Amino acid sequence: MGFNDFDTVALDEEKNALAIIDQTLLPGEMKMLYLTTQKEIWDAIYLLQVRGAPAIGVAAGIGIYLAAREIKTDDYDEFLAEFEKAKDYLDSSRPTAVNLSWALKRQEQVVLSMKGAPVPEIVEALHQEAIKIRLEDIAVCKSIGEYGLTLVKPGDGLLTHCNAGRLCAVKYGTATAPMYLGHERGYNFKIFSDETRPLLQGARLTCFELHEAGMDVTLLCDNMSATAMRNGWVQAVFVGCDRVAANGDAANKIGTSMVALAAKRYGVPFYICAPTSTIDMNTPTGKDIRIEQRKPEEVTEMWYEKRMAPEGIKVFNPAFDVTDADLITGIVTEYGIARAPYKEAFEDIFRKKAENPIF
Amino acid sequence: MGFNDFDTVALDEEKNALAIIDQTLLPGEMKMLYLTTQKEIWDAIYLLQVRGAPAIGVAAGIGIYLAAREIKTDDYDEFLAEFEKAKDYLDSSRPTAVNLSWALKRQEQVVLSMKGAPVPEIVEALHQEAIKIRLEDIAVCKSIGEYGLTLVKPGDGLLTHCNAGRLCAVKYGTATAPMYLGHERGYNFKIFSDETRPLLQGARLTCFELHEAGMDVTLLCDNMSATAMRNGWVQAVFVGCDRVAANGDAANKIGTSMVALAAKRYGVPFYICAPTSTIDMNTPTGKDIRIEQRKPEEVTEMWYEKRMAPEGIKVFNPAFDVTDADLITGIVTEYGIARAPYKEAFEDIFRKKAENPIF
Repeated sequence: MGFNDFDTVALDEEKNALAIIDQTLLPGEMKMLYLTTQKEIWDAIYLLQVRGAPAIGVAAGIGIYLAAREIKTDDYDEFLAEFEKAKDYLDSSRPTAVNLSWALKRQEQVVLSMKGAPVPEIVEALHQEAIKIRLEDIAVCKSIGEYGLTLVKPGDGLLTHCNAGRLCAVKYGTATAPMYLGHERGYNFKIFSDETRPLLQGARLTCFELHEAGMDVTLLCDNMSATAMRNGWVQAVFVGCDRVAANGDAANKIGTSMVALAAKRYGVPFYICAPTSTIDMNTPTGKDIRIEQRKPEEVTEMWYEKRMAPEGIKVFNPAFDVTDADLITGIVTEYGIARAPYKEAFEDIFRKKAENPIF
Repeated sequence: MGFNDFDTVALDEEKNALAIIDQTLLPGEMKMLYLTTQKEIWDAIYLLQVRGAPAIGVAAGIGIYLAAREIKTDDYDEFLAEFEKAKDYLDSSRPTAVNLSWALKRQEQVVLSMKGAPVPEIVEALHQEAIKIRLEDIAVCKSIGEYGLTLVKPGDGLLTHCNAGRLCAVKYGTATAPMYLGHERGYNFKIFSDETRPLLQGARLTCFELHEAGMDVTLLCDNMSATAMRNGWVQAVFVGCDRVAANGDAANKIGTSMVALAAKRYGVPFYICAPTSTIDMNTPTGKDIRIEQRKPEEVTEMWYEKRMAPEGIKVFNPAFDVTDADLITGIVTEYGIARAPYKEAFEDIFRKKAENPIF
């Protein structure tokens, strides 16, 4: 049994465990973790053994169900009090991860909506909701993949940045969803994966997962993508995103905007793959998105092992950048492809979602 | 005595040695090497203890003089034969380095032009020429610095890529020359240094030398320069170059063209610093410049110590890229600043050089 035999996040019904691939060991070692206690699940999220917003959300949904199973009471109020404790505890593992608190709140709603019901029934409802959260993630990614696939043709060169792959979700990923679906259908893409400094998620994770899936993958440094495009090797760029503003400006892993500038220069279509959950109509433009700054050591030291730069210098280490809407050819969601003007396009997409939800 | 007390390359007249800073140990350790034998000098160039086209040229000019000193004969023909052997040997240390063979040929001309002269006189002429080659390099860099300095003002943020610093020349460097001269005059620049994957010359060398000189230096990953410009922190970009085509297209370290694209987007002037020796009027455009591909391991392994990417993937690792002339605000030479249309501007510059050489 290897990497392709496991999903990134799953509920193991036999072991009553959250089953995850330990991403801190990739690409060197493939190891599954089966987590049953709250502490184990908290640690796994905190230590980035499971990472990527969708995957963290699914892990939290399953994790809080497993925690609820362990609450030893038949009294609703006692159960609720213990449930809230477990929820707050898991929520503290990565407080900035939106999907984490989103999934926990969703499970909390299950408990609150069943006020006074027998505890075993509530636990079973949490079980079903955990399964649903996970299946929804798969369905959303698959739908993004289907829409994305309409934008390319067999044999195309596709470039991506960072890891918006299956390792950040359950299956398919977002930016990689068109690649996986196309691969299943014999499209023979040529994939280009930016290494993505400073943490090298592209080299370590994206190259790994796509190579394991049997795709033709070429690794390049972030500063080489313009040359690959200039050489005519890239027919489309697909990247994920962390937040999309109402005007279509998109925040994603640092360096994304430079890929977009190169794509514009060389006439390569540039697509953001975004579940509708990442489109934030309350954020007017990219200027309103706060960019997280991270530790200098990520840049100056290689895996905190070897110093790569002199002591005493300053370091600029933003985790994300904003790609302006005018550089984006389209934003691929699970309800279709939005194109400029984005505000109107997003309203259409949300209308579709309300009228005819995928799940 | 520290880093600032030594030039990158010098002739130590007391020790009769080529004195270089061992760049393979930077930024961790500052060590001077005093090389006297042909074998030692060959090794230093081959092992990149001295690197950067101008510095290699100067090292070769001094090295061949030191080799000539050791030739034990009073007969011109015997001397010439031994000299040619030493020249070919040193020339083989890095065959693709243009300045290496350029400096050796220049010293060969000294010997050939003194046919039949007493050997001690020829050796002394080689001595003087070695000193001249070195002083010329300093003068050229300083002149580039003076012209570059007219393009900026005190307090400006200046961004550079790779190392076109004093560590690639004798003093001042090319792209860093305006920074050094401005620093001497209290300009208080804020310097931004791209780390420059895969070999991190920016992090290891540029940050080191500018920080040692007392400048305010901020290190950033290559994929962050657009964000620094978007933030309004950068008033000009100065980079070096390996070859400039007749139409102004410039080949420089991989990633340079992506910095230029970002500079264009955010209205930041983008300058190439180029000694006239790198302007090649026989290369019509950037398309005619062949780009060297280097080993995959530079990207997949960190200092050949730790694997950063899965086995089995392909790697794209071009050493240089081409920045199109329309992205370049100006090309700063030791004879003035060329601006589009470049062909005419270069003809002016070469006319100035012929009429009134700096040295």
